[in-house]
Amino acid sequence: MRHILIIGAGKSTGVLVDYLVSKSVEYDLHLTIADKQLSSAQNLAGNNERTTAIELDIFKPEPRRRQVKEADIVISMLPARYHIEVARDCIEFEKNMVTASYVSKEMQELDQQARDNNLIFMNEIGVDPGIDHMSAMQVIDRIRDQGGRMLLFESFTGGLVAPQDDNNLWNYKFTWNPRNVVTAGQGGAAKFIQEGKYKYIPYHRLFRRTEFLDVEGYGRFEAYANRNSLKYREVYGLEDIETLYRGTMRRVGYSKAWNMFVQLGMTDDTYTMDGSDQMSYRDFINSFLPYSPTDSVELKLRHELRIDQDDIMWEKLLELDIFNPNKIVGITDATPAQILQKILEDKWTLQSREKDMIVMYHKFGYEINGQTHQIDSTMVCKGDGNRQTAMAKTVGLPVAIAALRILNGEIKEYGVQIPIKSSIYKPILEELEEYGIRFRESETKYLGYNDLNL
Amino acid sequence: MRHILIIGAGKSTGVLVDYLVSKSVEYDLHLTIADKQLSSAQNLAGNNERTTAIELDIFKPEPRRRQVKEADIVISMLPARYHIEVARDCIEFEKNMVTASYVSKEMQELDQQARDNNLIFMNEIGVDPGIDHMSAMQVIDRIRDQGGRMLLFESFTGGLVAPQDDNNLWNYKFTWNPRNVVTAGQGGAAKFIQEGKYKYIPYHRLFRRTEFLDVEGYGRFEAYANRNSLKYREVYGLEDIETLYRGTMRRVGYSKAWNMFVQLGMTDDTYTMDGSDQMSYRDFINSFLPYSPTDSVELKLRHELRIDQDDIMWEKLLELDIFNPNKIVGITDATPAQILQKILEDKWTLQSREKDMIVMYHKFGYEINGQTHQIDSTMVCKGDGNRQTAMAKTVGLPVAIAALRILNGEIKEYGVQIPIKSSIYKPILEELEEYGIRFRESETKYLGYNDLNL
Repeated sequence: MRHILIIGAGKSTGVLVDYLVSKSVEYDLHLTIADKQLSSAQNLAGNNERTTAIELDIFKPEPRRRQVKEADIVISMLPARYHIEVARDCIEFEKNMVTASYVSKEMQELDQQARDNNLIFMNEIGVDPGIDHMSAMQVIDRIRDQGGRMLLFESFTGGLVAPQDDNNLWNYKFTWNPRNVVTAGQGGAAKFIQEGKYKYIPYHRLFRRTEFLDVEGYGRFEAYANRNSLKYREVYGLEDIETLYRGTMRRVGYSKAWNMFVQLGMTDDTYTMDGSDQMSYRDFINSFLPYSPTDSVELKLRHELRIDQDDIMWEKLLELDIFNPNKIVGITDATPAQILQKILEDKWTLQSREKDMIVMYHKFGYEINGQTHQIDSTMVCKGDGNRQTAMAKTVGLPVAIAALRILNGEIKEYGVQIPIKSSIYKPILEELEEYGIRFRESETKYLGYNDLNL
Repeated sequence: MRHILIIGAGKSTGVLVDYLVSKSVEYDLHLTIADKQLSSAQNLAGNNERTTAIELDIFKPEPRRRQVKEADIVISMLPARYHIEVARDCIEFEKNMVTASYVSKEMQELDQQARDNNLIFMNEIGVDPGIDHMSAMQVIDRIRDQGGRMLLFESFTGGLVAPQDDNNLWNYKFTWNPRNVVTAGQGGAAKFIQEGKYKYIPYHRLFRRTEFLDVEGYGRFEAYANRNSLKYREVYGLEDIETLYRGTMRRVGYSKAWNMFVQLGMTDDTYTMDGSDQMSYRDFINSFLPYSPTDSVELKLRHELRIDQDDIMWEKLLELDIFNPNKIVGITDATPAQILQKILEDKWTLQSREKDMIVMYHKFGYEINGQTHQIDSTMVCKGDGNRQTAMAKTVGLPVAIAALRILNGEIKEYGVQIPIKSSIYKPILEELEEYGIRFRESETKYLGYNDLNL
């Protein structure tokens, strides 16, 4: 029996457990599911002889180290900042490890020690980062194998509500961490390259510089730029590429409406507001508008943002009930972003029967023998229920598949890894197709930003 | 003979030295002017038996401590962050000290030691902070002495170009540290109180929420809000005030035009731009605009900011020559703010015969016996030449006057001080009038923000 230790019974762990349980007889697996809340672990473990649920406080070194020592491989589904202690235990006890998180500086520093001990620390193998890496590199490697030279790579991902439950004016509901949605894009200018030129967009313009994307069968989406589109330039081997852009997908119209909050300053997470505890939603809005003894909060906002009363932007605000003087924030020392998050959660929380959807869109522009080409590759994954959400599937499945392959000795890339080598991504992408996570490619004329067909 | 040590031969030190030299016979003074550059110190010292110029590196403790030890009082005109080492020497050798800078946390921590040794560490006694404190507290104290209750305090200061040299479309030239002008308002939302309501303005809206101010004989100005208008609420004893607002004055139209730079992201000081060394001014602008194979940088900018070609905003941009493809930035790893500063310095540097101007405007709203009143108090100070700029006079004179009064034992408020007590500010304001730094008061109807006279 091989022992898999899974730490953190979070949103994506259910899918991960289900996959490994389904393989447990064939591959002789036993899963230990550890969480600070025993009930969370038990809930995922179910009544199954192949699983054990335990309570584990990762801040207590003794029990944590004991569990790591007894495992054959460790999967950490903890929040990203907590991986590192587990990783150090894995070095000490010579265990392989898998996470879905970005490689932190501390994690990267373990690279040499991991290599020296023939250990695999596989990271960034969820959806974004994860499936984006794998699906992009598969096409990029194929283009290179054919002798092509990459001209353009644009990549977009969005976590959205599935079409059948897409029933509010924003065409958006929270399907993951709401906080990340409210603070998206903050902390500096967005940076990317278009036709060899570095471009920068300040936060307060970000949601007005969107691109449209059409996905067959799903209609039109828009995307705003990620903070740093150049992060994987060297990792992907795209040092000389002319256009490199990564973005976040939303339904058309979301960004223009979201920009209202940005413009008023309601997404700011850097200071706390006086009296936030007793503040009404209406007071909150009013804090960002000039004082007036006569004009209503509504009129001041419309004037400030130049919104006509028959503008759909206005309807979107009303739908959120943000002018309500009786709804109280009730959070002490809250930042504007925290208060806005609360207001949005009233309306945008996915209900138990509602389904989410992950959409990914890559564009690959390249040149072979003087001829330009473009491949567009898209993936849509819809949730199947409360436990099998699209987000949980696209994060949990690649983690689970990678873990089993490492356990079976089918991956031999030692050190701190991300899934950008074909030996790693090829079999994982193939297996993901069995679970409906499938990319559709289409060839299209390469336009770049220069060929306008005037 | 009493020895005054003046460290830092900066822009305002000339006026300071001139004042103290003019009093040196009457009060038996000798000035030691210390600077890292001996020539700077010599230039200010001139050929005068009452002055000595010395070279002093304040990072070398031994000579610094020797100089402090020999002085009867120390004036630090260094950049604010360097005061603290001098201040610690002053504690050790029991010397009084004067600076024009904001009280730092480290400086405040010396308060008890200073008190225990009957030492005076007078800070914030330049123009802003300095003359603003004194002139405001003089009126506030008078209102209180009459039994009045403060309802409103608004205070505005601007460093501008004098009317006779106000000859560019921006009605602005650099009269002090250009860097502070380019980064003004950054680092968080502006916060103030209007009619008992907390109000917040995000940076990217700051320059669109201005107030107008009319100064008799000087026409109309505008003001944008300072970062934290509430900083002196407790210090001034205004805990219960309904309206508290501090701002920076410019000529009307400056803020609307400056907002173009803010909107494009050109004032950002948090990241460096790739290739800034070889970048042309035109490249710089283009970095903040979408790529286009056909449209000019000019058209893209006009479109992005919705500027008609006959709009004065457009003329203001042309005046700065920012679209020039041949002017090169020439600064390695520069932030957008640093590059913008360089572009502006080409055009906005005050020429040697041009004069600056300091404008200050206070509004005091109050209530006595159920009747509301308002006093407006304004001060305009114009420069008299290269050494006697308005900025140098309004910073250097109050520092010099305070230093001499401390030396003469006429100030007895021990500890780390700012000039908000009448025993300190009254004689200083009186003496400043002799040098043309004079406030004009007028009574006006108190309107606040509630009485609209509809």
